Amino acid sequence: MQGLSCGMSRIVGCRFSVYPMTDNFVDVIKGALEEVDTSKVWSYTDDVSTCIRGRSEHVFDVAKAIFIHAAKTGVHVVFNGTFSIGCPGDSEGDTYMSEDDVRLNEESSQNEQVEAASQFALYPMNNPDYMQVIADQVSEAQEHGTFTKGVHYASRLDGDANDVFKTLEEAFVNASKTDERSHVTMTAAVSANSPSTKDK
Amino acid sequence: MQGLSCGMSRIVGCRFSVYPMTDNFVDVIKGALEEVDTSKVWSYTDDVSTCIRGRSEHVFDVAKAIFIHAAKTGVHVVFNGTFSIGCPGDSEGDTYMSEDDVRLNEESSQNEQVEAASQFALYPMNNPDYMQVIADQVSEAQEHGTFTKGVHYASRLDGDANDVFKTLEEAFVNASKTDERSHVTMTAAVSANSPSTKDK
Repeated sequence: MQGLSCGMSRIVGCRFSVYPMTDNFVDVIKGALEEVDTSKVWSYTDDVSTCIRGRSEHVFDVAKAIFIHAAKTGVHVVFNGTFSIGCPGDSEGDTYMSEDDVRLNEESSQNEQVEAASQFALYPMNNPDYMQVIADQVSEAQEHGTFTKGVHYASRLDGDANDVFKTLEEAFVNASKTDERSHVTMTAAVSANSPSTKDK
Repeated sequence: MQGLSCGMSRIVGCRFSVYPMTDNFVDVIKGALEEVDTSKVWSYTDDVSTCIRGRSEHVFDVAKAIFIHAAKTGVHVVFNGTFSIGCPGDSEGDTYMSEDDVRLNEESSQNEQVEAASQFALYPMNNPDYMQVIADQVSEAQEHGTFTKGVHYASRLDGDANDVFKTLEEAFVNASKTDERSHVTMTAAVSANSPSTKDK
C-alpha cells in the first residue's frame, strides 16, 4: 500500500453503520468502540449512522477496526458505508488533517482473523472517464487476490477482513488521485459470519 | 407523485440489504419476504445483498414493502441500499420492463404505520451540473415535509415509512430525468425502531 499516505492532503470522510444481527446489538457495537482508538478522526454518531472524517489512512483504520472488533464476536455483522473525498463545500474536522500517519488500530486489527465478503462500488463524480477509472481499480483489485467477481452495480471481494479493507482503501485512494480536485465516493458493504452460503 | 410512472422506460435496479438487529434475523427477513409480491421484478439474492431490477415503480414498491414488513415486527431494522439507473452495459431482467404500472404491494404497505429515519445521497454521474441536480431534489424533498436536515454527505428524512420512500423515489426519478441517457445512483439507509434518540 506504498504511497497511500502521501499526497492525500484532502480530508476524507465515511458515513457508515455497523449492523450486528443480534438482540444485544448495542453491546456488540459499544464493545467494539471501546477497543478502537478514534482520537485521530473527527466523529459524530446519530441514530442512523456514524460519520468519521480526517486523513484517509485514519478513516480506513477506524472503519476497519470497528468492523473487525464487532465481527470477532462471531455474530453476523455487516459494515455498510460510503467513503467520500472532495465533496464541494466540505468542512468540519479540518484540524484532524494535522495528525501524523501512524495508524492507531492497525496492530489490533491485524491480530484478528475475520473472514469477510464485500460488495463495493466507486463513483467518480463529474468525470467523463469515470467508467475507465472504475475499470482500472477493478483490475487493480484483481491483482490483490481479493476480487471475486463483478455483480450488478458492484464488485465483490472475499478474504480476510484486513485484506478486503486494504483493497477497498487502495481502490478509493487511487480513484481519487486522478485529479487533485476530484470528488469520489465509494459504497461498501462488508459482511462477516453470515449463515448464508457464500456466493463466490 | 404525478408522472413517476411515465417516461421511465429504462430499467432501474436496487442492490440492498435489510438488517434486523435480532437473533432471529433470518425469520424476520423470511417473514417479510413472504408478505411481499416480487413477481414484477427480476431478483437475485446472495450472502451479502439482494438485487432487484425492473420498472422504477416496482423496484421502489418492493424495496419499501420488504422494509415495512420487516420493521412492523417492532425489531430495530435498517434498509441499506443503492438505487441505480442508466449504468452502462446494464442488462438482465429486461423482460420485466413489459409489466404494467400497477404496484402489487402498495396497499399492504400503506396499511402499516412505521416511523422511519433515512439518510440518502444522490450521485448523478458524468454531469458537470451534478451539485445543482442534487440541490434541486433536496429542495423538492423539503416541500414533502419529510426533509429534516442536511448532514455530512447526505440528507436526512423523517416520517412515516411510506412518505419517506415516496420522497426517495421522487428524488431519484426526478434526478434521472435530467437527460434520457443519464446514469444516476442513490444511496439510502432507512431505519426503524432504533433505541437511539432521534437526531432530527
